[in-house]
Amino acid sequence: MVRLLVLYSQPSDADAFERHYHDVHIPLVKQLAGLKRYTISRNVTAMRGDAYYLVAALEWDTLDAAKHALQSTEGLATRQDVANLEVFSPGVRTMLYELEDVQL
Amino acid sequence: MVRLLVLYSQPSDADAFERHYHDVHIPLVKQLAGLKRYTISRNVTAMRGDAYYLVAALEWDTLDAAKHALQSTEGLATRQDVANLEVFSPGVRTMLYELEDVQL
Repeated sequence: MVRLLVLYSQPSDADAFERHYHDVHIPLVKQLAGLKRYTISRNVTAMRGDAYYLVAALEWDTLDAAKHALQSTEGLATRQDVANLEVFSPGVRTMLYELEDVQL
Repeated sequence: MVRLLVLYSQPSDADAFERHYHDVHIPLVKQLAGLKRYTISRNVTAMRGDAYYLVAALEWDTLDAAKHALQSTEGLATRQDVANLEVFSPGVRTMLYELEDVQL
């Protein structure tokens, strides 16, 4: 499984950020091809270092599926919209990686 | 579901970091009560901003289960060991949050 992690710092205007995220960004993300899971987390508790305001995780089955979605027209629109969110929340960090399960 | 996200920056000595993570840290994490999933990701590709070197995710069913595990003797030992890893990778960020699934 492959996860795209998106880390948003505390927005300058949380209401405006939330409106844009809800009304514009979520509908864009939902159009991404092959997306298997999409989670959003607020109320992030910092245990070491600073917390982020919002953590989003998008998941695909494979790295190829994720790259295909992110490079599509819908992917480009979604990524461009992160720039709109970055107006409220500077220093957004987005990273893509494969999950390696540790046997418990 | 509740996730503990641990973000490690590029270590000064990656070999020493990896040895400690593998030999000491993973066995500690595996002792945590109620842990349902533990994933480690390296080869993190930055898409916006800087990447982290290693992203670890620990998952529990509930916030109570996570807090119980983290406040136990094993939890304390695991958290103290992050301080050992921080010698190699300064500025570790650890945060705990509930996952809210967006309906796709």
